[in-house]
Amino acid sequence: MYLRKKKIRLYETDATGVLYFAQQLKLAQETFEIFLESASFPLGVLLEKGEVLLPIVHAEADFFQPLRVGDEVELRLSLEKMGRTSFTLGCSFYKEEVLVGTTSIVHVVIEKAAWSSIQIPAALHQCLQTLQIG
Amino acid sequence: MYLRKKKIRLYETDATGVLYFAQQLKLAQETFEIFLESASFPLGVLLEKGEVLLPIVHAEADFFQPLRVGDEVELRLSLEKMGRTSFTLGCSFYKEEVLVGTTSIVHVVIEKAAWSSIQIPAALHQCLQTLQIG
Amino acid sequence: MYLRKKKIRLYETDATGVLYFAQQLKLAQETFEIFLESASFPLGVLLEKGEVLLPIVHAEADFFQPLRVGDEVELRLSLEKMGRTSFTLGCSFYKEEVLVGTTSIVHVVIEKAAWSSIQIPAALHQCLQTLQIG
Amino acid sequence: MYLRKKKIRLYETDATGVLYFAQQLKLAQETFEIFLESASFPLGVLLEKGEVLLPIVHAEADFFQPLRVGDEVELRLSLEKMGRTSFTLGCSFYKEEVLVGTTSIVHVVIEKAAWSSIQIPAALHQCLQTLQIG
Repeated sequence: MYLRKKKIRLYETDATGVLYFAQQLKLAQETFEIFLESASFPLGVLLEKGEVLLPIVHAEADFFQPLRVGDEVELRLSLEKMGRTSFTLGCSFYKEEVLVGTTSIVHVVIEKAAWSSIQIPAALHQCLQTLQIG
Repeated sequence: MYLRKKKIRLYETDATGVLYFAQQLKLAQETFEIFLESASFPLGVLLEKGEVLLPIVHAEADFFQPLRVGDEVELRLSLEKMGRTSFTLGCSFYKEEVLVGTTSIVHVVIEKAAWSSIQIPAALHQCLQTLQIG
Repeated sequence: MYLRKKKIRLYETDATGVLYFAQQLKLAQETFEIFLESASFPLGVLLEKGEVLLPIVHAEADFFQPLRVGDEVELRLSLEKMGRTSFTLGCSFYKEEVLVGTTSIVHVVIEKAAWSSIQIPAALHQCLQTLQIG
Repeated sequence: MYLRKKKIRLYETDATGVLYFAQQLKLAQETFEIFLESASFPLGVLLEKGEVLLPIVHAEADFFQPLRVGDEVELRLSLEKMGRTSFTLGCSFYKEEVLVGTTSIVHVVIEKAAWSSIQIPAALHQCLQTLQIG
């Protein structure tokens, strides 16, 4: 599991006064980027090399409580499932120890040139396993 | 069903060269706003009156093909399910008649003051039924 | 001059209830993309070819009146200045014939490989001149 | 002056591979939010109280170098000018000690009910002065 704290900012909210729903998925994905970096797997380098991409094939989110500007959330990123060519990341959002939302995002590993799925590279596989719970 | 055509713009893409995944959900939600307007149920007025809100409690998306700057998509918005206090909208994304993505978004109707769910108002119920397929 | 009508959507606003300021610049830039398309100069094709880019070196905006969800604005895009390697686009935002905001954006034409400025290509130059007022 | 480090994330970039221009202004504004919080002036509380707002009346940005996914920038927020009812914040973006961009944003203090400008409240005035350089 990887933990990250984050405060909700004005640009992430909308005129209803709360977090715009799609931003919750962005926050989860951003947490994955920060995790990759912490694991010496920076996305920027991956993009520059340009051989492998990790596009998202499925994403979902549940919203239990509205989040407002300045609210601090703790994001808990974990590996939900590891396949041969894809993996699923879960992210739970806590505000003062109360679960306020979750996301689940499925990435597939593809070779950029052919835009076809390939086996998860060993180094990435190892890195993702550190996200396993328990 | 409600149809809308839309071209993918630069700000909706990211450095991988394609539509940022969370933008697909934003596009679906925006289509719902446009539909409400076309049905004389503008969201802006709803917000101004401020009694009823339609927060999202669940959202999911599937991605079958990457979308690039300038790609024209046809969005087909439909009612997937109507409950007593909530409703589910589906949106299918077509590029040149090929299904490239889908979303499913569950809205709940709440009274703003109490932030508690209420029955779908009759006028909104009637309006949503025009989105029913078949 | 190029005209475009646009309604403000929920995701473009923030918790203060009005258009998030940076979205005004996005709307102007998006209008330029739509103009390029209408002039058979689609940005997507430009990006795919990948030889020439039009990065922004300066941008500014003035805000005279707040814009809310559902407000319809007319955007008037015009050429403010044409240089040898750069050009400046102005965009005025009108709500019910009242000027509510303006933007001014300076693009420079660069060769992607060297990321160095080049003379505005003749075809683009001609296309931009149709934006001239008067 | 207030310093903040930030890495560029995927959702802040576009298909040209670099930071989307309007995001630079968002980053500056977000830094102001973080500063307010650090000075015990959280924007969220301000919004909840709802008497005073700090809308932006002018914003501008210069871009000297493109920023890519994973690039770390140091943002240096400072007070450029203090008026009676408005103030101007400057933000400089450094990448490895090289100035890659700047922004300048003018806020006006308004009373929400009347949406009319008022004198900068003493506490906010004092707080902003800590952003003065030299």
